This record gives sequence, C-alpha cells and structure tokens, in this order.
Amino acid sequence: MTAETRQPARPEAVAGTRPMTPVAPAVPRTGALRPLGVDEVRLEGGFWGSRQELNRSTTIPHAEHWVEEMGWAPNFDRAAAGTLPDGRRGTEFADSEVYKLLEGMAWEIGRTGDEALDERLRRLAARVAAAQEDDGYLHTAFGRDGQPPRWSNLEWGHELYCVGHLIQAGVARLRTHGEDQLVRVAVAAADHVSAEFGDPTDTRIGGHPEIETALAELSRATDEPRYLELARLFVERRGRGYLGEIGFGPEYFQDDVPVREAEVLRGHAVRALYLASGAVDVGVDTGDAELIAAVARQMGATLARRTYLTGAMGSQHDGEAFGGDFMLPPDRAYAESCAGIAAVQTSHRLLLHDADARHADVVERTMYNVVAAAVGEDGASFFYTNPLHQRTVGRMPAPEEVSPRAASSVRAPWFAVSCCPTNLIRTIASLGSLLGGVGGEDGHEVHLHQLMPATVRTRLDDGETVSLQLRTAYPDDGRMTVTALEAPADGAPVRLRVPSWATGARLVGPDGEARAVPAGEMTEPMRLRAGESMTLELPVEPRLTRADPRVDAVRGQVAVEQGPLVLALESPDLAAAGLADDVAAAELLTDRAPERRDGRIWATVRTRPLPEAAWPYRSTADEDDGAAGVGGSGATSGEQAEVALIPYHAWANRGPSTMRVWIPEA
Amino acid sequence: MTAETRQPARPEAVAGTRPMTPVAPAVPRTGALRPLGVDEVRLEGGFWGSRQELNRSTTIPHAEHWVEEMGWAPNFDRAAAGTLPDGRRGTEFADSEVYKLLEGMAWEIGRTGDEALDERLRRLAARVAAAQEDDGYLHTAFGRDGQPPRWSNLEWGHELYCVGHLIQAGVARLRTHGEDQLVRVAVAAADHVSAEFGDPTDTRIGGHPEIETALAELSRATDEPRYLELARLFVERRGRGYLGEIGFGPEYFQDDVPVREAEVLRGHAVRALYLASGAVDVGVDTGDAELIAAVARQMGATLARRTYLTGAMGSQHDGEAFGGDFMLPPDRAYAESCAGIAAVQTSHRLLLHDADARHADVVERTMYNVVAAAVGEDGASFFYTNPLHQRTVGRMPAPEEVSPRAASSVRAPWFAVSCCPTNLIRTIASLGSLLGGVGGEDGHEVHLHQLMPATVRTRLDDGETVSLQLRTAYPDDGRMTVTALEAPADGAPVRLRVPSWATGARLVGPDGEARAVPAGEMTEPMRLRAGESMTLELPVEPRLTRADPRVDAVRGQVAVEQGPLVLALESPDLAAAGLADDVAAAELLTDRAPERRDGRIWATVRTRPLPEAAWPYRSTADEDDGAAGVGGSGATSGEQAEVALIPYHAWANRGPSTMRVWIPEA
Repeated sequence: MTAETRQPARPEAVAGTRPMTPVAPAVPRTGALRPLGVDEVRLEGGFWGSRQELNRSTTIPHAEHWVEEMGWAPNFDRAAAGTLPDGRRGTEFADSEVYKLLEGMAWEIGRTGDEALDERLRRLAARVAAAQEDDGYLHTAFGRDGQPPRWSNLEWGHELYCVGHLIQAGVARLRTHGEDQLVRVAVAAADHVSAEFGDPTDTRIGGHPEIETALAELSRATDEPRYLELARLFVERRGRGYLGEIGFGPEYFQDDVPVREAEVLRGHAVRALYLASGAVDVGVDTGDAELIAAVARQMGATLARRTYLTGAMGSQHDGEAFGGDFMLPPDRAYAESCAGIAAVQTSHRLLLHDADARHADVVERTMYNVVAAAVGEDGASFFYTNPLHQRTVGRMPAPEEVSPRAASSVRAPWFAVSCCPTNLIRTIASLGSLLGGVGGEDGHEVHLHQLMPATVRTRLDDGETVSLQLRTAYPDDGRMTVTALEAPADGAPVRLRVPSWATGARLVGPDGEARAVPAGEMTEPMRLRAGESMTLELPVEPRLTRADPRVDAVRGQVAVEQGPLVLALESPDLAAAGLADDVAAAELLTDRAPERRDGRIWATVRTRPLPEAAWPYRSTADEDDGAAGVGGSGATSGEQAEVALIPYHAWANRGPSTMRVWIPEA
Repeated sequence: MTAETRQPARPEAVAGTRPMTPVAPAVPRTGALRPLGVDEVRLEGGFWGSRQELNRSTTIPHAEHWVEEMGWAPNFDRAAAGTLPDGRRGTEFADSEVYKLLEGMAWEIGRTGDEALDERLRRLAARVAAAQEDDGYLHTAFGRDGQPPRWSNLEWGHELYCVGHLIQAGVARLRTHGEDQLVRVAVAAADHVSAEFGDPTDTRIGGHPEIETALAELSRATDEPRYLELARLFVERRGRGYLGEIGFGPEYFQDDVPVREAEVLRGHAVRALYLASGAVDVGVDTGDAELIAAVARQMGATLARRTYLTGAMGSQHDGEAFGGDFMLPPDRAYAESCAGIAAVQTSHRLLLHDADARHADVVERTMYNVVAAAVGEDGASFFYTNPLHQRTVGRMPAPEEVSPRAASSVRAPWFAVSCCPTNLIRTIASLGSLLGGVGGEDGHEVHLHQLMPATVRTRLDDGETVSLQLRTAYPDDGRMTVTALEAPADGAPVRLRVPSWATGARLVGPDGEARAVPAGEMTEPMRLRAGESMTLELPVEPRLTRADPRVDAVRGQVAVEQGPLVLALESPDLAAAGLADDVAAAELLTDRAPERRDGRIWATVRTRPLPEAAWPYRSTADEDDGAAGVGGSGATSGEQAEVALIPYHAWANRGPSTMRVWIPEA
C-alpha cells in the first residue's frame, strides 16, 4: 500500500442488504469509474440477455455434469477421503474448472436469486471445503504421498493459478451473498499463500498468472491490505528470470521482461493478459501510474499489431502465444476463447481507470466476436480456438465426446483441457457489469458503454438514485433509447459511448434535436430528468474492411463488418445460393456494396473453378503453356450470386462447414 | 521377402576394392535405376562441389567439436565406464547426432580417402562400441539403474530411431570401407532389434520412424533378409493405433492410418518422410507395387498442396507438422531442414524406382533452396527452420551460443536439439549419388538428373565402362556440356533431365543440331561416343511466380525464381539501393521484368510509407476520414529503385536482416 492509495466514497448497495458494493468482478479502489454491479443491471432480452439466460438454463448445468463426468469435482472427494493420488483425474489445473464454475454460479445467483442453484453451489462448495488442508493449502495434485511436494513445480504446477480462481469464486460469493463456507475456504487459501509467499525477499512466482488479479480483488472485497501487497510482489517479481527454464523460453510466461518495462504483450496470451489485468489492479490500488501506463502501452501495441479483426488475441498454436507483429494467419489462428475473456478483463480495468471509450470498443468487439462465438447456440458446445478461416469440413463430435482442445472446426461439448467453458460461464453471468459505470469527470455521471436492452438502477456518488431504461434491438438496429425513470431534480448526467467504427453517429437529445457525435469517444454528458429520453443512432449498415498491408496473410482480401459484428461467409450459404459449396472457391465483388435486406446481409459472391495442379506455383514462363490455372490472375470467370453473410459468432451452428471472414476480392 | 524380389546384376566397383556397389546411401534391389556411387562421381567445384569441400574442411570438424562440447559423445564414455545415468547430457536422441556424424565422416572418407578423418572416425566409433551392451543393445538413456527400462517409452524414447541412425552409419562404413568395428556394432544392434521386435505377432513400433529405411538398407548391404522383413513389419504395423496416446494425437507419428491406405503426408514432417522413405525401400525390395504407389500418391498430394515454393515441407511449428492443405504461411513456416533432407530421400527413392524426372525436380528444388540454405557460407552455422519471410531483425548469436531449435532469424552454431547439422553433413558428403543413375528402359543408359561440374565413371549393366565429363556453371548459367571420355564403340546412351520449370530448353547433340526438349521429362537417350559432346541449354532468366489462390497467405504477392533457385528480397539490398531498410515496406513492380545484369538479378522495387495506426483494420466508412492509411489500396506512392535479389539460400549471410520470398505486387 502506498500513500497515494485512497478509498473513495462508495454508495451503499441500492438493491438490498449485500455487504459490499458494487457487486461486480472488478471493483477498483480508485479510478475514473466504478462499474455497475450485476445487481444494478437487469438485462431484458436482446443479444446478451438471451445469452445470459441460456448460460443459466443450459451452460451451467452442462458444466456441472461435466466436472463430475471428468472426475474433476470427485477429485475433491478423494482428497477429503484421503484416497488421493489414486484415481485423480485431469490436468494439474482441473481444480480451477470447479472454481470457475462456482464463480459463475455465484454471479448467477447474485443476479437472479436462484435458490435451487444456490443449493447446488453450497453442495459443491462443501466438497471443495472438505478437501482443504488444515493450514489452508488446497490443491488435489500436490503434497500427498505419491504426489509431488507442494510448490515443487512453479513453472507448470498451476497451484497459485488454481488458488487464484478459488479466490475469485470466493469474491463473487462474498459480494453476491456474504460470508459463507466458500468465502472462508478462499480466504484461508489466500492466507496460506500470503504466509508462504509474502516474504519480500522471496522470489517465487507461479508459471500461470491469475493469482495477482484474484488477490487484488480479495483485498478490495475484504479491505485486507496483505493480499494487495502480495499481488504487488507477484507482479514485481515477474520478468526477472526467477522461474526455471522451459522449452518455450521465459517469454512464454512473461518472465523475460519486468511488467513495467515491457513494450508489448507476448508469449502465452492468456497468461500475458491475466498478468496485465493484475498489474492494472495493483497499479490502480497502489497509485502506481507507471505500472498502469506500462500495461496501457503494451495493450495499445498489441491492439495495433497483434490482434485479429474479431478482437481475438494469441495467433500462434505453438505456445498458445501472441506471435510476432502482424503475424495473424486467419486459418492457423489459435485465438483462444480464454484469451478473449482475458482481453475483456484487461480492457475493462483500463476503462474503469481512465474512462476512455476506446477500451470499451475492445470489450464490445471481443464480446461479440470471440465470447459470443465461443458458445454454440445450444449453450452446450464450445470453441476453444477461434480461427477466422475454416478450410475443411470438420467432423461432428458425438454427444458425449471430449475434444482435444485445439480441434475446433466444430464446437465440442467439453475438452480434456477445459478452461474455456467455465471461463465463459463466469463471464456471461457477470456481463451486466460491463454495461457501464458511475463516476466520470465530475464524479457523478452515468457512463453507458454497451448497448443492451436493460434497466439500470444505481446511485451517483452524491447519493442520488438514478434509474434508466435502455431500449434497443442492437446490433441488428443501431438505435438505443435511454429513458430516465428516476433522476435528481436537475437530471442525471449520462454519457454514451460512440464506437470507433460508428462514423456518422447522431445523438437525439431530450429536446428532440439531433447532433453529430464523434466516433471513438464518450458523448458529452447530457442531463436526463425523470421521464426524459435520448436516442443514440449508430450506423450499422455493412461496411467493407481491409487490413494493414503488413498483415500479409489477408492481402487482397476484404472483410465485412456490421456494427460491432464481424461477418463471415459460410459454406451452407453458398450452397443456398446455388454456388459451389466451399469458401475456397469464393470471391467477393466489392464494386457492389453488401446490403441489408430482410434482416440479413447480402453480398455478391463469385465462385471460380479451382485448379488441380501437381505443383501449386506457376511461373510467367508456364503461362502460355496450357498448364493448370494456378496463379492469382482472377481471369477465370465463374458463377455469381447474392449470398447471405452471417455474424462470425453464429458460424458452425448448422453443422460442419467451411468458413472465412477475409474473402478474396474479385 | 516375396517371390517377386530379384537381385539384379550389379557391376563390380569401378574404382577399387570396395566390397559392395554402388557406394551410395540408398541402393534398391530392384527398380528402373541404380544410383551412382560416391566413388563414381567426382564433383569438380561448382555450387555443390564447393559446398562439399566446405562440409569436409569446416562443418565436420565443427560438429566433432560440438558433440564433445554438448556431452553427447562423452555419454558413450560414461556408459562404458558404468557411470550413467549421472551426468548424461542431451535429449533421448542425442546418441543419433554422433551416429549421423559418423555416417557423414564415412561418406566423406569414401569420397576422398582422407586418412586423418578415417583415424578420427575410428576413435569415435571405438567409444560408441565400448558402450554397446553384450546383447547388442545400445542407447545411453535407457536400461541402467536410475534410467527408464529399455523400450519402456516407445512413443518418445527414440531408441529405435537411434539404432536406425547407427545402422545407417554402419552401412556407410561397410560400403565405403568394408567391415570394421563400426559395422560390427551396427549389425549387432540390428540383430538385437530383430530378436526383440521380429516376432510377427508383436505390435510394437517406435514413435519416430527411421529404423525402417535403415534396416532395409542394411539388408541390401549385407544380403540378410531378416532386416528387410523387420523393416516390412515396422511399416505394416504403423497406422493401427499401437502406440500410446499423446497430446498431438496419433497423426503426429503417422499411427492414424496404415501406410498403404493414407492419401497424403501428415503429422510431424520428418517422421512422415522417413517413414515414406522406408516404405518405398520395403515396397521396392519386396515387389509390393501397392505400397510404392501409396507413397507416390501421398507424396504427389503433398507436393500439390502442402509444400512451400522452396520445396520445404512441414509448415506448422505446433507438432513440427505438415498442417492442412494450402496452409503455407511464409513467416510462420517451420520448414525444418531435416524435413527437406527427408523429402530428398523419399523423392530420390521414387526416382530410382520409376526414373520419372519429376522426382528429380523435387530433389533439385529442395537441395538448392532448403539444404543449401540450412548451412551458412561459413560452414559452421545452421538453420533449423527455414521461413520464407523474416519480419524482424534477429540477434546475432555469440560464437559458442547454443540456440533453441526454432529460433532461426540468424543461423546458429549449434542447437540444443541438433538433428539438422549432422543430417546436413551426411547429406552433403554423399550428394554425388544424387547426380544420376544407371539403368533406364533398356537397362544400360546413363541418366543425369542434376547439373554439376563433375567427372562420372561407371559401368553400364552390360559391363561397358562409361566416363563422362560434365562442364557447367549452373545455376548461374543454364548450359551443361557432357563429353564422353570413355564409351562403348557404339556410344553410351545418355539421358538428361529437363527441369519442369525449363520451358524452352534445347539440347545440342554431337551432330551440332539443336532440338527442343520438353520440360519435366528426361530427354530421349542420345548416344555419345568417346570424344563426343552434347550440350543442354536451360533458360535461367528470372521468372515471376504466383501461387494457387488457395495459398491465401501469399495472395497478391509474387516470387522470383531463376533456374532452380528461389530468390529473396533481403533488407541489406534495399539499403544498398537507397530505399527503406525493411522488406515490410517493399512492393515489386511487375510490369518491368526482373533482369540479370553483372551476374545479379535486379528487380524494380517500390517502398511505401507504413501506416502507424492504433487499429490495423480500416473500413470503407473511415476512408474519407483522415484516418491513417491502413488498407491495401496501394495508392500511396513511394521511392522506387532497382534492387538486387539474392538466392534464398544465401540470405542471412550478412548478419541479421529482414527478408521475404513472396513480395507484394505493386
């Protein structure tokens, strides 16, 4: 803790008796904004509301089934019964899947008060609690006879990582419910870790960051500075080569350069982004502007050079890593779902710190095009990787078939390494907190960052209650009307984010007057009195998008975006238009703009015959030679038709297919 | 052994007293051609002769130093002294580096009779021999107290792989020298493996193929059918899931589909190609046309869809694997040097089987653009991976710095996993055998597949001695004159390969008459009497090459080839032309053909200013908006100049640089 740390006044909970506010995953001690709590936001259908409901009705029970089926919850029973290590199942981080599921259940209960779910949470938490050792240590893969000793494999053991997820589950439970067994288990584990690693002369860190952001949040939720100090130590120790040598090199787990010196995110994407989130937490709570600026700089460079159009990060399968600048192959994209979630976390923390609308752009892009894509429309199948180009028609997995993690031509019901499904559960259950925040320049504005049909009820920092009704069919429609239901007599100052892509956006104020609002910024605050409305109008006509020439992998190709959605060409739509059923044969005719008609986006696509050649390269000398038509001349004509493009997030919901976001330009 | 197997008449060695002929790494029992032996070919300078000399003078002593420095040769001393496992160094396959070095030394001694080198080979072989156990088993990482038991880790242990390389060293020594200690060690190891694995009901195989081709060759060299039968069993057992599960899946080590059923090469590229070589050997020697056809089909599909312009195979870092069809990113290319060597081995075996010139095209392309690239001009630094696009300026390693294997922005003196340097040594020492073969349709033709200045002295199958002098400055010059020094009275029938790229080639016969010869075929046989000459004229002017549209990663880009050479644009040449020193900024003006002048290839290159943008994608809606110039419109003008292109194999010889083979087309 430094002298700069301050605890700003926080309103009491609006919605009831909960002990801490806001009821959100990330509640920084300082910063431009406090987030809305999940109890302050009621989603009312729409894109995200329906997904949150599917998460509740289907995805959570699905995951409850699978953590039993895979033996990961039973690992805790074996630990309690003293029968480990025999029969322990899963990876070293299998415990964390149970913790992330518990966290998601806690947010869901906090949002809806679901009593049956609460009972299931208690039962599962009791099994975890029974496995905790007397000194607070908790991990099912270490420390028993026949297992490696505790903390003996910091590089790969994932002990601190698992404790981090346990702590986040505890924080969620504490904020949504108050102290109970799960909270006590998490606090005991945190205390154990603090005692074990808290000596300032210790140099040990865990191979997979996660504990940093978890400890910082527990410090916020319990007002205990020890946890924040340990988070700070873990952030500062990193990047100094204290971890052992591994085949991927120290960059893999960000042990190559200290956090405050690095220029760009690198190595394993999820590790890098969890660390970045934790560093922002530590920087914000200790008043360490240099540390926050370092993460902002790294995130900026990563967005400029190492991010897919979908917002996905981590292009490289090898080491699940970022890869080099502009190395963004659409087909070999790793683009892990968890890295998307982690990028949302980092961006959300930067947004709360400085209220800059551009961080909310990243949140929106990644939520619509990675997080939404990672869950199937059935709510019970998932992508681990999110490539932007699928070349071959995959095989449909059997209903109970576990997929290896990176085989994602079709969503799988579960993975042997299954970090993504439970991470999606906790993210979707708590996403109301991403909608906006309170604070801003004069300390009592409402900032609305995302467009969702919802009712928001919160208090400004001056204690005034504000209730807003948000009505929108976004992203199908670009309009959102915000009506004040409750507001101070002189009105509630409300700012709306205008996305960076929304050139030509307008805001119609309560006076009925429309004014142009610049893209990529928050609007000027506009006061709404009770009963007054304003309407944001974003242009969501489809637009053509091209890449920096250094993204060589998509040269000569064009993508179509519509509002926050990246669109894709999928083979069933080619077939429906009577064209060859393979996206490899397709070119987009860009002299005719894609257009919206009957609720779909239509583009003119030409399919060309594909060459069959023994050698896929053709020289000028061969060209008069009758050789097969290899070479990008595009001179071959073919069939053409209007084809519907679908949102990228919706691909592979109709069975195995080929798909591409970047389409060769005719 | 099948009834179809026949042992064709083989000429006695021409050059002396050696016991077996031809003196070559691969000498099939049947087939259209027998290869020339290293004792029948004397390279006389030129592209490959100078490299063979550098291999002798520098690379072999360099490797002798490093196998000591890394502790890999001393592992055998420790084994003999009974002091293992303490102090054993290197991977499970470290033994094989010593064996491949011994093989290379043996070929080199066979070529030159170097007595000092022979003495060094004997000393090193004696240390290996001392480590062999009484029953013939030999591996320094298994079977002792404190080590895993023998054959306990077939998936990853590399025991059979190492024995394979020991056998190949023994075959090289047997053919170039005759029986000695190294040969006896290899035979004893082969006998041990035969006893251990030869039961037809056994299902065990090794995770890394190599033993198959080695056993087949030892069977040829010793006329012992047992070894061939075990090679056959190993080939037939594969692809049936007999190996255990690994994270990469069974495709990684070709245990997914039986060899004779597979349609394309897949998984780990070196493993796939070593297996393919062994399958051809087995197919040829057992008269199994189906097996040979299966490999030919797989290799054809791999060349059509999974091969880089350089001939490099195995695009994918993750699993060192082929990756999917047309997934050929130039920047993230793995393109392992050993996979290039293995592709040469497979193609050479298919060539000897059917004498089809197209296999020799693959050999030539891969030798000039992978094998030649993998060794630095100093003969003491190596590429493990061979990307076609280097985006960032790498760091020069310190003189004694060991590199992780896949970090290849600059050649490294040695690698922790160092399969490539010793593989290059044995390949370059024996490459004379790739020059041509004897046999053909009427059984006594000379086929010359490669263009090298050399003297060839061999016997036709009818016993007639033929001596040919080859004079050429290839590949700088496209002409090669072949003069018969000795020939039968009615002349020696000689065929020359016309490469597939050589549209417009001519052959000037001894009659002085020039005739057009079709590309991609062997010329009709032409009889040369002693003193007569003929000249092949290949067009080696630079040509522009474009890729199949499905190789999306190089869309809108063009490569320049000259004869067998793939050319590259390297940053020092941009700087020399006064342009921006980064290949990312360069475009090729293809309306002006590259031309040869002063012994170099010159192309017109334009450099454009690179955008600096916070987001590397730009939509149509942004374009009138003053946003940074992202997007491939190419409307920005820039500097332009004539820039020298270099052969790809020569890149990174002037220090760290950026480089690209595929250049955006202006």
